[in-house]
Amino acid sequence: MNKKFAKESYTEMNELVLPNDTNTFGNLMGGRLLYWMDICSAMASQKHSNSPVVTVSVDNVSFKRSIKLGEVVTIQAKVTRAFNSSMEVRMEIFAHNLPKGTRVKTNEAYYTFVAIDEHTKPRKVAELLPETDEEKKLFDEALQRRELRLILAGKMEIKDAKSLQQLINSAATH
Amino acid sequence: MNKKFAKESYTEMNELVLPNDTNTFGNLMGGRLLYWMDICSAMASQKHSNSPVVTVSVDNVSFKRSIKLGEVVTIQAKVTRAFNSSMEVRMEIFAHNLPKGTRVKTNEAYYTFVAIDEHTKPRKVAELLPETDEEKKLFDEALQRRELRLILAGKMEIKDAKSLQQLINSAATH
Amino acid sequence: MNKKFAKESYTEMNELVLPNDTNTFGNLMGGRLLYWMDICSAMASQKHSNSPVVTVSVDNVSFKRSIKLGEVVTIQAKVTRAFNSSMEVRMEIFAHNLPKGTRVKTNEAYYTFVAIDEHTKPRKVAELLPETDEEKKLFDEALQRRELRLILAGKMEIKDAKSLQQLINSAATH
Amino acid sequence: MNKKFAKESYTEMNELVLPNDTNTFGNLMGGRLLYWMDICSAMASQKHSNSPVVTVSVDNVSFKRSIKLGEVVTIQAKVTRAFNSSMEVRMEIFAHNLPKGTRVKTNEAYYTFVAIDEHTKPRKVAELLPETDEEKKLFDEALQRRELRLILAGKMEIKDAKSLQQLINSAATH
Amino acid sequence: MNKKFAKESYTEMNELVLPNDTNTFGNLMGGRLLYWMDICSAMASQKHSNSPVVTVSVDNVSFKRSIKLGEVVTIQAKVTRAFNSSMEVRMEIFAHNLPKGTRVKTNEAYYTFVAIDEHTKPRKVAELLPETDEEKKLFDEALQRRELRLILAGKMEIKDAKSLQQLINSAATH
Amino acid sequence: MNKKFAKESYTEMNELVLPNDTNTFGNLMGGRLLYWMDICSAMASQKHSNSPVVTVSVDNVSFKRSIKLGEVVTIQAKVTRAFNSSMEVRMEIFAHNLPKGTRVKTNEAYYTFVAIDEHTKPRKVAELLPETDEEKKLFDEALQRRELRLILAGKMEIKDAKSLQQLINSAATH
Repeated sequence: MNKKFAKESYTEMNELVLPNDTNTFGNLMGGRLLYWMDICSAMASQKHSNSPVVTVSVDNVSFKRSIKLGEVVTIQAKVTRAFNSSMEVRMEIFAHNLPKGTRVKTNEAYYTFVAIDEHTKPRKVAELLPETDEEKKLFDEALQRRELRLILAGKMEIKDAKSLQQLINSAATH
Repeated sequence: MNKKFAKESYTEMNELVLPNDTNTFGNLMGGRLLYWMDICSAMASQKHSNSPVVTVSVDNVSFKRSIKLGEVVTIQAKVTRAFNSSMEVRMEIFAHNLPKGTRVKTNEAYYTFVAIDEHTKPRKVAELLPETDEEKKLFDEALQRRELRLILAGKMEIKDAKSLQQLINSAATH
Repeated sequence: MNKKFAKESYTEMNELVLPNDTNTFGNLMGGRLLYWMDICSAMASQKHSNSPVVTVSVDNVSFKRSIKLGEVVTIQAKVTRAFNSSMEVRMEIFAHNLPKGTRVKTNEAYYTFVAIDEHTKPRKVAELLPETDEEKKLFDEALQRRELRLILAGKMEIKDAKSLQQLINSAATH
Repeated sequence: MNKKFAKESYTEMNELVLPNDTNTFGNLMGGRLLYWMDICSAMASQKHSNSPVVTVSVDNVSFKRSIKLGEVVTIQAKVTRAFNSSMEVRMEIFAHNLPKGTRVKTNEAYYTFVAIDEHTKPRKVAELLPETDEEKKLFDEALQRRELRLILAGKMEIKDAKSLQQLINSAATH
Repeated sequence: MNKKFAKESYTEMNELVLPNDTNTFGNLMGGRLLYWMDICSAMASQKHSNSPVVTVSVDNVSFKRSIKLGEVVTIQAKVTRAFNSSMEVRMEIFAHNLPKGTRVKTNEAYYTFVAIDEHTKPRKVAELLPETDEEKKLFDEALQRRELRLILAGKMEIKDAKSLQQLINSAATH
Repeated sequence: MNKKFAKESYTEMNELVLPNDTNTFGNLMGGRLLYWMDICSAMASQKHSNSPVVTVSVDNVSFKRSIKLGEVVTIQAKVTRAFNSSMEVRMEIFAHNLPKGTRVKTNEAYYTFVAIDEHTKPRKVAELLPETDEEKKLFDEALQRRELRLILAGKMEIKDAKSLQQLINSAATH
């Protein structure tokens, strides 16, 4: 199985906020952003796996700042780690007001995808090779996020989440 | 401040999966479901608060079963607990194949909303009164989910998450 | 052929009125409502027939009250009677202003569907069993509506519309 | 008040049937056609009234022939008669298969609109002048259709529908 | 190979400008108009060729006047000339303000299509027969536009563009 | 007036080709691509001008290769030159088949925009500073494209197009 660098999956989407994307206050609806994030991170995981993919989970997403009608939403996605057939993708989201020349980070998110073959069965993907310090940190912490994900999906018990347990204990005792 | 029953916020959405909602395998894209879930849970929290609302967070969502083109997605939403100006909404999602007469639960999810006034400032909402055993259980556990949400959004430290800490310790020692 | 209760086909749709659904006065366009009504009543008739369906006719629909941008349209559909391969579906439509907590009935409508098999040929459907007094009344009157529909579609002559003729005579002589 | 010819309101719409307009058999959904018909007849009544309009009713519509993905729907609309602030618009709908060079009439329909002023109050519209024999016939029969519409909307009793009563009696005695 | 008159390909589209078609000034976005123009001219070239078609080029389009939310865009398309498997379609675009009763021409454009067979290979189309003086003028000048198109697409060198060269020389020496 | 580098306006859009974007052969419709190109180049010109913009013209666009359902369209846009209130934007378009790992350039295009103030009047924009050899070449040739655009829009006569005239003469004599 070949290996691939994190940067090879890098994908950027820029979307203009149109009237139908907004609520009655003229702000982007959260659901529309979640939709775009799904498309963008699916592209990143397709680049890594050279395979069709399906969304298997979305981690906690918090919306910290409203995005206005007419602004541009920039989504930057990159695979952080691969586990057999699944891939974690991290995204950073920015609100651009192009006429004002401002660009503000609004939130981050993690979506997970599974690569599938022509019979829609999971298929093994390339290992991810982190290069930069940030990529290495995200690669390492991906284990804890994965355990949390499995617990929250009812597929793992807290007592088996070694990596997460370690983190919590160290945090709780400080 | 008046109080409201959980059932008063109950909202059901039924959406037909159309071609543009699907990937090249003819399955509903995760992002489209996240979009519909946002609309449905926003309605439930508007019913509870009698106020416009904005999405503030989405908890972990995992997609366990694909939903096909031509099937109907049923989303059932109900507010589980209110905290000052915010409300947690729980949803159950079902895939209906109406010609086959089958209906399968595909996943559950929690979205959180904040009620806003005409200046888009948070405003206090009614307290939620759980009635059934299930509503009471969801009401109690809402505290732990809220702590987890705050930690994951970087707004609380693990050591301050009393309710969650209790749960983890009890789980870890079993 | 099995029989089915009216309530088994009950389907509720809740749709948020978005900018693109409205005219320049910010009111829901009639055509958008007719589209949603078609989807909702198609679901109800699919539930009754456990079959794909096609729309064969729409009865007179009158729009009595405007629905505003940001309001929620609730459509409640239930099959009233089945005739061989066709089913009449009755809908009640409500406009919800969730922040204001108001809910107003805006209109009613009847759509008719035919169940089709895999060759798109009509196929027999289950007989409908009305239970409540209202369901029984709607079941009985369905005959008159059907005759009116056939006359208006040029498939029946007024003189052969026994049930309708009876109604008109009795009304005209009062 | 000025008068206007029927032909001055003539409006033609041609719409390509795209994937999202179709059911799982690749046929145009009835609701999408009802939506396009609303837009087209609204244009015709705006031309007649030189005013914004709102849809007030849709007469019985029957769908006689399926329209396929990739075909073109042609809608031809013309005002048949004006009553104070309301206008009846008649449409003929055709399915074009352009590669095959076929064009088939699929159905006819009547939508009624009311002209509104800037306060969304009904405003008087120009009288309609029919010119051709067909326009004159449609103009005359518009009275019966209007009575039927008012009866079906619960705004008139059968015994007061003079024009319709005449038609039924003459039909029933033949 | 049969011949066809220009008028046989005539196609008119009327589209209502909805909120999602507009920028933050409430004006129709250029890209939406280009999209509608593609659909309309594709219909005209399908009528001429009785064949599926694909867009191969768009000539210079200039936008001279803004079109407002709620106005109606009228696009009138007609094939001007056929070259083996390709067809040039000319369009005139108008902005209608129906309540005001105004209609203003906003621009003209030429799109070129190629007719394709079931294997998506180019197939020969009928010759176009111009009838009116304007059709004949457009037919003759189509040669120059075609040369310009081929030069701009890098498929012809200026020195080989006989018809265009003649035009430029005559223009430059005046 | 401040000056800006070409690279400061660089904008990339990545769009997934969904069913409703395609014709009956499953290929992206030209008009949908023209729509996305308009959005992407509008963003680039907004970045350069820090101002709302309107599309004023589209240069010849030729479509050389079909793009399939499920592929990703990448559009890369950069301002090439500014003229008072107008900006020329050049785009390169690529079709990505992510599962296959292929990426093919499908075409190039130039759109021109004008910056507008709050009264929708043209406003002066920053001068563009080309840096790389390619940017300088595009900057120089922008003069000829502009003359061609003005001639084709009927705003300049061929004899006054100095820069274009020079090019044609030199080409024609080779």
